[in-house]
Amino acid sequence: MREAYETRLAQIDIALVAMADLVGTAIRNATDALLADDLTMAELVIAGDAEINQLNADVEEISLLIAALEAPMATDLRLVMGAIRISGSLERMGDLAVHIAKQVRLRYPNPSIPAELSDTFRKMGKAAGKIVAQTGEVIATRNTGLADEMNKYDDILDDLHRELFTVVLSDDWAHGVEAAIDVTLLSRFYERFGDHAVSVARRIIQIVTGEPYAK
Amino acid sequence: MREAYETRLAQIDIALVAMADLVGTAIRNATDALLADDLTMAELVIAGDAEINQLNADVEEISLLIAALEAPMATDLRLVMGAIRISGSLERMGDLAVHIAKQVRLRYPNPSIPAELSDTFRKMGKAAGKIVAQTGEVIATRNTGLADEMNKYDDILDDLHRELFTVVLSDDWAHGVEAAIDVTLLSRFYERFGDHAVSVARRIIQIVTGEPYAK
Repeated sequence: MREAYETRLAQIDIALVAMADLVGTAIRNATDALLADDLTMAELVIAGDAEINQLNADVEEISLLIAALEAPMATDLRLVMGAIRISGSLERMGDLAVHIAKQVRLRYPNPSIPAELSDTFRKMGKAAGKIVAQTGEVIATRNTGLADEMNKYDDILDDLHRELFTVVLSDDWAHGVEAAIDVTLLSRFYERFGDHAVSVARRIIQIVTGEPYAK
Repeated sequence: MREAYETRLAQIDIALVAMADLVGTAIRNATDALLADDLTMAELVIAGDAEINQLNADVEEISLLIAALEAPMATDLRLVMGAIRISGSLERMGDLAVHIAKQVRLRYPNPSIPAELSDTFRKMGKAAGKIVAQTGEVIATRNTGLADEMNKYDDILDDLHRELFTVVLSDDWAHGVEAAIDVTLLSRFYERFGDHAVSVARRIIQIVTGEPYAK
């Protein structure tokens, strides 16, 4: 009985780490699709979201099962309850990667972003890839010290988002209203991606320390 | 013991309904602030978010308490676990109202939206107010039949969001790139607000019926 319980608890962690891995692949591929106007890659990201959604449902089911069959206490209980919110955040991060891929599909065969912004989105994609890799590591290792580094990448995403506004609103912007809206929404997807990653890290800190979740 | 347990379960419902009420006030006030360029009203919405966040934390604490002290089964268990995701959605809806209010504050004393879009945002505010009122009612009454009507209001929000794109991207748009981005983001906040309301209704259906949550 105890063994089955430990196995189920471990299953939650395995599913959450798998979700973080898949979300990492999704955001990297979505960025590649965006930078190369690659429709095949975009379709791959869109199709891949079903697996992330399935894992989200799995985490919920396992959590319900543990809560129903066992009486988890302290850290285990916080893990079971926290896992539901963590998998919700990871699922949403997958959705944001899909939003980026769908934008590529919508504009294809035209480019989704003007060439002068390639570098900005390359940096965003890199920071987003790093932050979700650390999300997976924090879940797997409970090394909450990584949270500070994650905040750093989140700040990078926020700064790039602000910088992009400056470009779009400058008198030099020559790409019109539609492109301005496109790149603003795309940039917002990366910025929100970072916010969700940070909220997962905060949840893990809560699970480990028992301190209330500070938003 | 049993009595205390029932009291705690009821507390979750009371907190969730209170959250829906506060979120309803927030989105109505945010829309009023937007339509009237009313800074005082915008500040009210921004300040009011703390209470919604506190209730979110309360729901989580009560849920943890019930799961730790009792062994809830079936519907009760689904309520305890589902409440965590429902309060997360309501908290996010409050954030979206705050995003609208902050946009009013950012542009004040200038108007946040061109006069020709007042009617669109008035309709969005009305649909958002209706949908969150129904969210509260579904939580309070478990009348899952309301879900269909909620989908109707969500469709209205989606349609208005699409309509707005048409306006912003038409050759007649005379307000420039910044205003185009502003109204697109504002419109997206209302559209996301509707999505979260619908996801709460689906959760309630899951709690009542035990059927898996369909996204």
